[in-house]
This record gives sequence, structure tokens and C-alpha cells, in this order.
Amino acid sequence: MTRTEIPARTGWSAALKEGQTFSVIDVEGGQAADLWAFNSEDVEEFLSAHHTRTMNSEVYPRKGWTFYTNERRPILEFVEDTSPGRHDCLAAACDKVRYELLGAGSDHGSCEENLQAETGKHGFEVRHAPQPINVFANFRVTPEGGFELLECVTKPGDAATFKALMDCVVVLSACPQDIIPFQPGGPTSMAAEVSD
Amino acid sequence: MTRTEIPARTGWSAALKEGQTFSVIDVEGGQAADLWAFNSEDVEEFLSAHHTRTMNSEVYPRKGWTFYTNERRPILEFVEDTSPGRHDCLAAACDKVRYELLGAGSDHGSCEENLQAETGKHGFEVRHAPQPINVFANFRVTPEGGFELLECVTKPGDAATFKALMDCVVVLSACPQDIIPFQPGGPTSMAAEVSD
Repeated sequence: MTRTEIPARTGWSAALKEGQTFSVIDVEGGQAADLWAFNSEDVEEFLSAHHTRTMNSEVYPRKGWTFYTNERRPILEFVEDTSPGRHDCLAAACDKVRYELLGAGSDHGSCEENLQAETGKHGFEVRHAPQPINVFANFRVTPEGGFELLECVTKPGDAATFKALMDCVVVLSACPQDIIPFQPGGPTSMAAEVSD
Repeated sequence: MTRTEIPARTGWSAALKEGQTFSVIDVEGGQAADLWAFNSEDVEEFLSAHHTRTMNSEVYPRKGWTFYTNERRPILEFVEDTSPGRHDCLAAACDKVRYELLGAGSDHGSCEENLQAETGKHGFEVRHAPQPINVFANFRVTPEGGFELLECVTKPGDAATFKALMDCVVVLSACPQDIIPFQPGGPTSMAAEVSD
């Protein structure tokens, strides 16, 4: 088992073989991570939140979910969760324009830029971030269709574990959002643990 | 004003100039259309449901919404709606694999294939359908996070009208879904009306 710290506001990635697992760990609590996964053999095939929602007939990621690609093939399984179980697949990743619109200037880091830096390490470019799985993000749909960015409810050390169902490049971003206050006490560091 | 019939199960598209409007008309009622929009000058920039949800802090498209691209720029405005107002931006477009998994064989038409045929007419390829706006699709999130594909509630002649906020290629697909029964009486024909 290999544990790597993900400093606050930065990204992490790994090329996993089918059957390997990785855990997303909220070291201090109250922090969310954006997650993406790309087929190692064909990076235009990637984890698709919209195909996954439709295949599972549910909208909140939870332990037991299979995540599907844009070709409707299984890519990840959500195998363990020690957190309160609040995760999202509806909110876009933050990006440079998001922070400019929020008045934070153009040099505020973002999950999209972390994604781009990480995929560059694996030799491919992503111009626009696909819909991420927002691990530990406590975002909820109201009965009227409102979309609320509630505060993360994770405790220190909470972990969500995923199993690779195909060879894939997985990317995490410790979300640097500090303008919209859904990460109490954050942004903080996270950790990733990879196991065979 | 130009009105074009969209035969059941087929697609339609148009290159619009900023300021033009188009209406999606459910001729017989109970039918949904998948909608996409691409920046004419740069087709990798397109209407993004996830950016739109996050920018609007809502998940059900409605009259008054601005739709944003994956660069968070306005591309369409939802300017008029004579239907009961049930629309979706959470369900993936149907595709060839979807129908194979549903046991309908490999020659059942799909919204993704309609999209691909239409964008081909405008000189570009789309390998995987982005999350569409599912006009008249009555899909709802339950309080527990279930995602229900309820029946369309449109009446004959109901129309949803959108204004182009940039030069864009818009694509519609009269959804050919006949295995999952959310289109009562369908699939049926639709119509598109373009106005300056």
C-alpha cells in the first residue's frame, strides 16, 4: 500500500491496473476532492457522470455504485466508505473562469487546472474538465430543483475507496474553493492510498 | 419564420446567428427532444449541463435559464415555454450501447447517432454525446437521490423556445426511446421553427 499526501489546493494522479484500489482520504475533515478516471488505452473514453446516473437510476454517488464510461462500460466501483456518505456528481469542477467570475482574480488555482497538470504527466491533454465525481461534497437537490452547496460533513480521516474495473488513469484534486464556503476550515490537505 | 418537421426518431440541426430563436414543438404531445448547442467558431466549446447547473444553482431547466458553455459563456437563453415546464439536464442521451443493453439489438436508432449524423452535416464529429438538455423530458430526483424517468406531460403543440446568445450549431433529436416507456404514445414526430 502506497500513501501519498495531496497538499491543499493541488492534484494527484496514478495509472492503475484493473483490480487495484485507491482511497481518497480527508485528512483534516471538511474537505472535498474532485475525481476523474480515464481508460488508459483510450483516454477519450472516461468516467461519465451522466451515463453513470442513468445506468444507476440515482444521482448521489454511494458505496456500491459502479461508475460507467461514456461507452457505458464499468470503470470504477465504489467499494468502501467510512465517511457520512455525502458525495456529488452534479456540480462542475471549479476553473479559472469560475474564480474570475467570483472576483478572485485569474491566478487562483482550480480543480480544472489541477486536472490538466495531472493528465499532462500521463501524456494527454484535457481542454475542458468532464463532470467530476465530487468526493465528500455535500451538494443536494431540493424538491423544487434548487441545487444547494451545503458544507462538507466529513470527519478527519474519513476515506472513500474505489476499485479500478479497467486499466485507468485516475486524477484527484483537493478542491481549492475558498470563496464559496462549502469546505469548513479548508482548503486542506488530503491523501491518496493505492493498494493492489 | 421557417418550420421544419422532424420525423419520429430522427434529428434536425441549424447553424444560428446570435439573436435568432428556435422553438422545439411537440406536435402530438408526450414526446421529448434531446438538445445540444456548439459554438460555431470553436465546436469544442459547447453547451455544458454541468456548468449550467452550477451557474444557475438549479437542476431543472426552465424558462428564464441561461445555458452556459464549458467555458462558462452564455450560449442559449430559454425564452418561452408553453408546455407544463418539465425538462431535464441529468440523463444521458440514448446511444447504440444503451439499446443493446436493453435487449433492443444493435440497429435501433439513438439520439447519439442522430447527433453524430447532424454534426456531420456541419463538418464536425462528435464521438460521445455530451449531456443533452432533454426538452419535455419529465425526469425527477427523489428526496433520497433516486432518479425517476416519469412520463412526458406535454400536450400537442407545446413549444419551448430558445434564443442563441452566440453563433452556434444547434441539434435536436426526436428521441427514439420505445423500450423505457417515458414517451406515452411515442416515439412521434416533432417540429422546429427558426425565427430571426
